[in-house]
Amino acid sequence: MKVGFAGLGAMGSAMAKNILDAGHFLVVWNRSPQAAEALAAQGATQADDPTELANVDVLITMLADDAATWSVVVESGLLGQLVPGAVHVNMATISVALAQELAALHQARGISYVAAPVLGRIDVAAAGNLNILAAGDAAALARVQPLFDVMGQKTWHFGEQPEQANVVKIAANFTLASAIETMAEGAALVRNHGVAAPDFLAMLSGTLFNCPAYKNYGGMIAEQRYSPAGFKLTLGLKDVNLALEAGNQSHTPLPFAGVLKDNFLDAVAQGDGQLDWSGLATVATRRAGLK
Amino acid sequence: MKVGFAGLGAMGSAMAKNILDAGHFLVVWNRSPQAAEALAAQGATQADDPTELANVDVLITMLADDAATWSVVVESGLLGQLVPGAVHVNMATISVALAQELAALHQARGISYVAAPVLGRIDVAAAGNLNILAAGDAAALARVQPLFDVMGQKTWHFGEQPEQANVVKIAANFTLASAIETMAEGAALVRNHGVAAPDFLAMLSGTLFNCPAYKNYGGMIAEQRYSPAGFKLTLGLKDVNLALEAGNQSHTPLPFAGVLKDNFLDAVAQGDGQLDWSGLATVATRRAGLK
Amino acid sequence: MKVGFAGLGAMGSAMAKNILDAGHFLVVWNRSPQAAEALAAQGATQADDPTELANVDVLITMLADDAATWSVVVESGLLGQLVPGAVHVNMATISVALAQELAALHQARGISYVAAPVLGRIDVAAAGNLNILAAGDAAALARVQPLFDVMGQKTWHFGEQPEQANVVKIAANFTLASAIETMAEGAALVRNHGVAAPDFLAMLSGTLFNCPAYKNYGGMIAEQRYSPAGFKLTLGLKDVNLALEAGNQSHTPLPFAGVLKDNFLDAVAQGDGQLDWSGLATVATRRAGLK
Amino acid sequence: MKVGFAGLGAMGSAMAKNILDAGHFLVVWNRSPQAAEALAAQGATQADDPTELANVDVLITMLADDAATWSVVVESGLLGQLVPGAVHVNMATISVALAQELAALHQARGISYVAAPVLGRIDVAAAGNLNILAAGDAAALARVQPLFDVMGQKTWHFGEQPEQANVVKIAANFTLASAIETMAEGAALVRNHGVAAPDFLAMLSGTLFNCPAYKNYGGMIAEQRYSPAGFKLTLGLKDVNLALEAGNQSHTPLPFAGVLKDNFLDAVAQGDGQLDWSGLATVATRRAGLK
Repeated sequence: MKVGFAGLGAMGSAMAKNILDAGHFLVVWNRSPQAAEALAAQGATQADDPTELANVDVLITMLADDAATWSVVVESGLLGQLVPGAVHVNMATISVALAQELAALHQARGISYVAAPVLGRIDVAAAGNLNILAAGDAAALARVQPLFDVMGQKTWHFGEQPEQANVVKIAANFTLASAIETMAEGAALVRNHGVAAPDFLAMLSGTLFNCPAYKNYGGMIAEQRYSPAGFKLTLGLKDVNLALEAGNQSHTPLPFAGVLKDNFLDAVAQGDGQLDWSGLATVATRRAGLK
Repeated sequence: MKVGFAGLGAMGSAMAKNILDAGHFLVVWNRSPQAAEALAAQGATQADDPTELANVDVLITMLADDAATWSVVVESGLLGQLVPGAVHVNMATISVALAQELAALHQARGISYVAAPVLGRIDVAAAGNLNILAAGDAAALARVQPLFDVMGQKTWHFGEQPEQANVVKIAANFTLASAIETMAEGAALVRNHGVAAPDFLAMLSGTLFNCPAYKNYGGMIAEQRYSPAGFKLTLGLKDVNLALEAGNQSHTPLPFAGVLKDNFLDAVAQGDGQLDWSGLATVATRRAGLK
Repeated sequence: MKVGFAGLGAMGSAMAKNILDAGHFLVVWNRSPQAAEALAAQGATQADDPTELANVDVLITMLADDAATWSVVVESGLLGQLVPGAVHVNMATISVALAQELAALHQARGISYVAAPVLGRIDVAAAGNLNILAAGDAAALARVQPLFDVMGQKTWHFGEQPEQANVVKIAANFTLASAIETMAEGAALVRNHGVAAPDFLAMLSGTLFNCPAYKNYGGMIAEQRYSPAGFKLTLGLKDVNLALEAGNQSHTPLPFAGVLKDNFLDAVAQGDGQLDWSGLATVATRRAGLK
Repeated sequence: MKVGFAGLGAMGSAMAKNILDAGHFLVVWNRSPQAAEALAAQGATQADDPTELANVDVLITMLADDAATWSVVVESGLLGQLVPGAVHVNMATISVALAQELAALHQARGISYVAAPVLGRIDVAAAGNLNILAAGDAAALARVQPLFDVMGQKTWHFGEQPEQANVVKIAANFTLASAIETMAEGAALVRNHGVAAPDFLAMLSGTLFNCPAYKNYGGMIAEQRYSPAGFKLTLGLKDVNLALEAGNQSHTPLPFAGVLKDNFLDAVAQGDGQLDWSGLATVATRRAGLK
């Protein structure tokens, strides 16, 4: 397949590399060219402008946020120039509202549009072990499944409207943030009664909560090890805001998300926005009078 | 060892049975005598009054709540008659405040007092696979470890003050309730965007959250299967209140626990107090305008 | 003075009428022409297009929301055609972000821009008794003060940045919504203990809270009289969202606003969005198991 | 009338003085005798033990909290010795649960029991201008009305169950605390956009909120003047807990009260428990990154 790939951050680069390694023709674009050059050195074609990705079977975008996605996909003219029959697979975490708008714009142009945000950090992406959360037209999804197979260990389907994958990704990140906050509050409570936080957290992740979310973030909270950031606290705030916006749009009260937002804002206001988002735990710690 | 056991609810009966099966001498008491009779039929001695448990090496209590514990242990005269050198192991979920008070009362009488609340439901207790959360004097804990070994798969230690095990148990139940609420809010959000709740929840428990808490309760929420209750919603409310009381005592803000309390109260006010506590999810569902 | 006025809803019409009655030359525009015709019948000049308001000393806009403001002021070309030396007074409740953007756009064109949202409902506007919350360049404010004097009983100043008046207006509406929620929760609590809500609310507004906010909204809650709407619940939700956005932008946690948002969403999800925003009280009532 | 008065804190002393000045026979008791001595110097009879207040027409108690009330009224033996036909008027802020228990105990003994907590601080009490929130048997209330008339400017009636006055008092204090929190959040928001908090708060209390609650506490927040305490922050926490307990008992969700509790705990955890309860505002200030 001829594949275009825009957005070569750490995640995007790892994903694109797997596509290249699987033998597909790959043309890549990134705002800062270094990441594209690295892939070009391995056989990809480097584009100087997003519109040079227009002539592909499948366009994959993995851009930072709503604004970057809009700029590169729409404002650049790329969407307007995509060849008939192409499928655009947007793998970034974007808002439900933008997903809806992009779906409408693609439909108006007769281009298939699929949302496929992912679960997994950089090492998981590099290993081709992502979990891919997909939604869109069934035929389009079937066409791009071979690409999903080289990027991910499993593809989960959520419906025919692309936004459905986005809302699931947003809800998954909300679930992670809630787990972090829960561990933070619980750790503050037990510490204020003389129990070491690592003892409490190790018990959780050794019993009812022995899964990656609690093991990984529980370990970071136990050690108060919030930098370097795997996923920045400011990005956590952004994603909680995506949940709140989706809730607002669909009239879904989300009281836990409201607490999370306030605590992320508190952390940012104290100057901790560059910590890993598990650094959300600093808020419960400080508010409980602990160090 | 000569073991006394008071409090033969479903959990207590299963635990006492394992002690009996391990060959210990067991004398049992329960407010309603039927449960004691069942164990007596298998070789235990049935006491007619709590004070008949006074002459043991180890007294185990597994009573319903603070009030029952106070009544059976203190008001009955049992504590006052325990023989010197006895160890009292309280395995119930009680408040931090009562744990502190009991610790002081036992110390004044020269009786070792150990807190050892457990994680696991009835089937886990029957299989001797509980996780035991223990705190208290190290020598006393060592003495009763053989009993823990027949009731549980693992004993976790949290300190020398009995209340430390209680606050950990309370925090663990808070963590479970938070997981339920998180899944409930997330499920309401994705449903309001056309995604089936089971699809979302299966993905969670198949990826980052593949652990018992999310699998079990996620399954119940996915199927909206809240009865029969494994653990009643009103008990969930009680345990969240224990967390809030512990937070109050130690000046620990717990915003998630506050949300949980309000939602448990909402559920009870709608007449759903007898549901399983995963029925907490009915609140997010109703508030989002869903059925 | 030659005054242009865009946005003739019930509030805008009442305000424009007072300007006309004070003897100023007034040219008016409204999306649906009927409101403009009514003023034209009383001596105003009716514009067919927003740009016909460009040749004035003072442009006043009182448009429904951010989108309407952007459309009429910027997209129509009006701002681009305002004559040098004109002052634009935006009296609508808009977001802090739009206020900042408009301030920058006006500055770039050399047009003075003043924000002056108001407190008071239609009857207060008709009587010329509004409280005007103003911010902007001091000289520009001085020039338009004669117009404020005919529309309002008092002008309050909050700084030289127009957005400062907007954030104060947003915070004032947040304060009102919080008062409504507080009375709703308090009323639910006392009702659940057998006290009549009107008795409780009359006591509040007869003692420590004898001020318009508690008298007016307390009366509506006491009588459960939520329609016709003086200010729709959906607009209350919009304004709480403006507070949350401003908080987000400036890293200000607002936990009460988070509760308000969830409760407004709950009300809208139950189909009550067209009630008066004091109908927020239906949420506390329902959640408490009351009718 | 022959009046007994127990609990001579600053409030109780001022109230008792007015009763004495009105010509009633007054016998007083206080845990620390100095306050009783001061009244004795003005004509009251000083009791050395609570039971010396048993032989009165009306017993008034104004004790610090539930524990002090229980100790002085019940444990001392006073209630058991009250003469038939006496009326006990409890003017303290106590829990709904204790009010119910005391009502039952008095009824069992054939003693009339009236709850009459008050609104107003010390200077208001001294001036005989309290607002008295009363509930209980109508005949008993009528008998003690002459005493209410010398202590207060107005008596508000809430029902025949004494607890009804207590829940109203608790809800009134919750309303005050919510007003403080609202002003604190609003002030933090406007400050983070460059508006001076006093400008915002003066506008509120000069317009829709021109009532004592907003004027008094708004002034303290504007000046960040939180000591000396008129009413300590720790007492504010106590009263919010009374609201939450009453909500718990009656299945009334109170999300604002939950936020208040967390913020009071936060303040106490930072060492600010001795501030005036308007010092709750320090929490919103700190969390917003402000000084």
